[in-house]
Amino acid sequence: MPVGSDSPPIATRSAGTFSLAELVGDLGGELIGAADAVMTRIGPLDSADAQTLSFLAHPKYRRQLELTRAGCVILSPDAASGLEGRCGIVTPNPYLYFALATQWWARRIRPSHSAGIHPTAFIAPGALVAPSATVHAFSCVEAGAVIGDGAAVGPYAHVGEGARVGEGTRIGSHVTLGYGCTVGRFGLIHGGVVIGADGFGFAPTGGADSRWEKIEQLGAVRIGDHVEIGANTCIDRGALDDTVIEEGVKLDNLIQIGHNVHIGAHTAMAGCAGVAGSARIGAHCTVGGGAIVLGHLTVADHVHISAASVVMRSITKPGQYSGVFPLDDNVSWEKNAATLRQLHGLRSRLMAIEKKLN
Amino acid sequence: MPVGSDSPPIATRSAGTFSLAELVGDLGGELIGAADAVMTRIGPLDSADAQTLSFLAHPKYRRQLELTRAGCVILSPDAASGLEGRCGIVTPNPYLYFALATQWWARRIRPSHSAGIHPTAFIAPGALVAPSATVHAFSCVEAGAVIGDGAAVGPYAHVGEGARVGEGTRIGSHVTLGYGCTVGRFGLIHGGVVIGADGFGFAPTGGADSRWEKIEQLGAVRIGDHVEIGANTCIDRGALDDTVIEEGVKLDNLIQIGHNVHIGAHTAMAGCAGVAGSARIGAHCTVGGGAIVLGHLTVADHVHISAASVVMRSITKPGQYSGVFPLDDNVSWEKNAATLRQLHGLRSRLMAIEKKLN
Amino acid sequence: MPVGSDSPPIATRSAGTFSLAELVGDLGGELIGAADAVMTRIGPLDSADAQTLSFLAHPKYRRQLELTRAGCVILSPDAASGLEGRCGIVTPNPYLYFALATQWWARRIRPSHSAGIHPTAFIAPGALVAPSATVHAFSCVEAGAVIGDGAAVGPYAHVGEGARVGEGTRIGSHVTLGYGCTVGRFGLIHGGVVIGADGFGFAPTGGADSRWEKIEQLGAVRIGDHVEIGANTCIDRGALDDTVIEEGVKLDNLIQIGHNVHIGAHTAMAGCAGVAGSARIGAHCTVGGGAIVLGHLTVADHVHISAASVVMRSITKPGQYSGVFPLDDNVSWEKNAATLRQLHGLRSRLMAIEKKLN
Repeated sequence: MPVGSDSPPIATRSAGTFSLAELVGDLGGELIGAADAVMTRIGPLDSADAQTLSFLAHPKYRRQLELTRAGCVILSPDAASGLEGRCGIVTPNPYLYFALATQWWARRIRPSHSAGIHPTAFIAPGALVAPSATVHAFSCVEAGAVIGDGAAVGPYAHVGEGARVGEGTRIGSHVTLGYGCTVGRFGLIHGGVVIGADGFGFAPTGGADSRWEKIEQLGAVRIGDHVEIGANTCIDRGALDDTVIEEGVKLDNLIQIGHNVHIGAHTAMAGCAGVAGSARIGAHCTVGGGAIVLGHLTVADHVHISAASVVMRSITKPGQYSGVFPLDDNVSWEKNAATLRQLHGLRSRLMAIEKKLN
Repeated sequence: MPVGSDSPPIATRSAGTFSLAELVGDLGGELIGAADAVMTRIGPLDSADAQTLSFLAHPKYRRQLELTRAGCVILSPDAASGLEGRCGIVTPNPYLYFALATQWWARRIRPSHSAGIHPTAFIAPGALVAPSATVHAFSCVEAGAVIGDGAAVGPYAHVGEGARVGEGTRIGSHVTLGYGCTVGRFGLIHGGVVIGADGFGFAPTGGADSRWEKIEQLGAVRIGDHVEIGANTCIDRGALDDTVIEEGVKLDNLIQIGHNVHIGAHTAMAGCAGVAGSARIGAHCTVGGGAIVLGHLTVADHVHISAASVVMRSITKPGQYSGVFPLDDNVSWEKNAATLRQLHGLRSRLMAIEKKLN
Repeated sequence: MPVGSDSPPIATRSAGTFSLAELVGDLGGELIGAADAVMTRIGPLDSADAQTLSFLAHPKYRRQLELTRAGCVILSPDAASGLEGRCGIVTPNPYLYFALATQWWARRIRPSHSAGIHPTAFIAPGALVAPSATVHAFSCVEAGAVIGDGAAVGPYAHVGEGARVGEGTRIGSHVTLGYGCTVGRFGLIHGGVVIGADGFGFAPTGGADSRWEKIEQLGAVRIGDHVEIGANTCIDRGALDDTVIEEGVKLDNLIQIGHNVHIGAHTAMAGCAGVAGSARIGAHCTVGGGAIVLGHLTVADHVHISAASVVMRSITKPGQYSGVFPLDDNVSWEKNAATLRQLHGLRSRLMAIEKKLN
């Protein structure tokens, strides 16, 4: 007989409903149409049905508005005339309103966990866990660690000695928060993240048969409030000073942040990006997926690095920067790549011709 | 005294043997030579000895056949004349036969685990674990989750609320299968994989000091049958709809799959590749190691992306596509890279010369 | 009431002190100035105060020496005249001395764990754990595994059947050491590392609707002494033979090492690098962050690959190699990248002009 079959299964995504009046009552916006219309989901315009709340991010996609079957569309005043009898919520920033609506909806449908410590968790003597915090199955909170009010520590998370998790922050499964490292308030750390592993620092012993002598990493990691960190991302502890992630930073999955990096507030980085040791990235930057920032560089505020680009020098001016070999069919690429290896010589030949002709 | 020293050690790689007759009896193929010849391992031609079963993937490597000491070689009819007295198994597709032989051998030598739930595991009330399934040490299966017949849940794996693991699927150590996510039948998920972390979705609040407002990720991840996923790979849950991995897909290690991505059947992706949100990759594609597919693109069936290449536009035709800066000695690269930054200007100068000469 | 509040918190980074005489007594070097001067930290020159021990890695940074407030500076004989009354430790290789000083200091300030097995750990019958080894919370050591003298197995680490951890090696949290894999002596494996997941090997069944037939990975992973492996890095087991990491290798975070790769002694690889199957990298190499080495290639000893570069052919000569598209502002990049796709044609046009003019 299957284990646990005598207990009722628990629906994890409730088939909940909400009325437009409830939503607008909480989030504001101008409601056009029936306030008692009932929605069952939030969805994109193209797969929406009559019980779907959808959104039009920008008036330029207005053609989609004509085709959608959505029961209600969040849109800007410019686009409201396109509703043609459908329900709508008019707001100056529809995409932001949509984001807030997903939060509002998630709070209603997601299973809530009551605070408390799971019986399989291990809380070491000398750890402080707020009574309103939740500690999930098999978590381990070491001595001197502090788990703040309303925070949650996921299954198999390891909170090292003296580490601190701020108020309301949720730590996912299998996360490592190394000794002495701190995460601020209202953060979200996804599964498998490793915060506070040693930075990569070695001194060569020298000579042709040089070995690497370890530089012990004596700093920690300090993470601000409202930071989200994606699955399996790694943030190394500093060598001497700390690695710092400022408030509001959003890091996607599988990102590598080297020791002593400093990432400014509200900067967002997409998956597989890497920042080498001691680089300093400004505030309000974006870094595309797979992009790499080399060590010891400085990147100004409001800089945007395209996906898969490599920052090899410091950037002092805001703007969009790119550096990617363009994709082509393989035969064309082979020819162009081979020619690229002669490019400097071709330039010289071009200059020789110019000289001859002038 | 060491712990557990009073129990006998268990050999994990048995020094087993097999006869060619047994193998050919189960897998077919034409056996040339002594059916009672006994093999102790499967190995490559160059390190083979008289008890090694080896294979010749393609007749063009025939020279290796002359040099090998292998006791038996799997090869095609074209190459069989090269056996010259050695044992051989003749089959139209030697590489495929070799694959099947490794499976046959692994079933014989690997330790088998009896079904059941390890005493350290935690099965929440309301979880369903098939009696023929195996749950390893410290696993956690949450309420509403279902573990299918003959499936195995590895040590420290976390199967979230309402998640489903199909018949015969093996989940490795430290895997996270998020709430409401599903994995089909006969799959293999390696250690550290995170399925169902939040997709990377935020709405900017706007202005020079813009913050990021979270878009709650309301979808899940659906994975088909016969899918293999490599260590520490991440597959994010969808924003509104689900992220979908179709049957027979093979993903290597450290791959990032963004929210709402759709990967077609029997597509294979090598390590460190990344697919950004809402990209749609066709069936029977291959994506090389470290390649990146940008978001919202469509890639047709039977497309092959070379390693480290970046797909920046949709691809509608089958074929091989590449885009990598060719490696060179550092001095040459510096010259060519500097010239590349003037390339558009050089083209203009070339055109000016052409105009002058015509 | 918070859990554990009746136990005293434990300081994880002690506010310890040391005198220069103690340090020089243990590590050597020529002490200039007051031997009884007391230091409280090791830090970089620019943030140093009078209780900070700092270092001048190279005489060319001598200007920093004038500006620092460091209480003592480790420097070379060439730079010693710049001390101007400050304390100094004169040594031929200041950076190496600094590395040794961090180790000396870390041994003094870090909390030491007494040997033994945490009550929440699971040691299977038939596992051998040396009495001087430490097994942390929720670790699992399977049958036939051996944990050597003074080794430490971190929280949630899974040591598979027949795996071996050498003397003094420390295994971090959530590490997977697969069945039959071995790690040598005095190593350090950081959190989330997966050693011994299956290599990525499949045989296509053939035809337009080809599926992938798994090649069971029958080899293991062998890791030498003094190897450090960064967080969430993956090293796959070999297909037929073993994957081999030789002594003294240093791997950073989020690195992918494919099956049957061989990495020579004292080679160091930075974060996000990837090495595809059966590649053979020599000894004393360095591989920059995000660089990729394709499969089946050979890289000679003393080769240095720049960050984000792709090795597509074997390298037989020592030296520095690079291949990265240079970053530019986005508008310039677009023009140059578009022109690059015509480069081979431009070369032909250049050659036509040369022919006409000669």
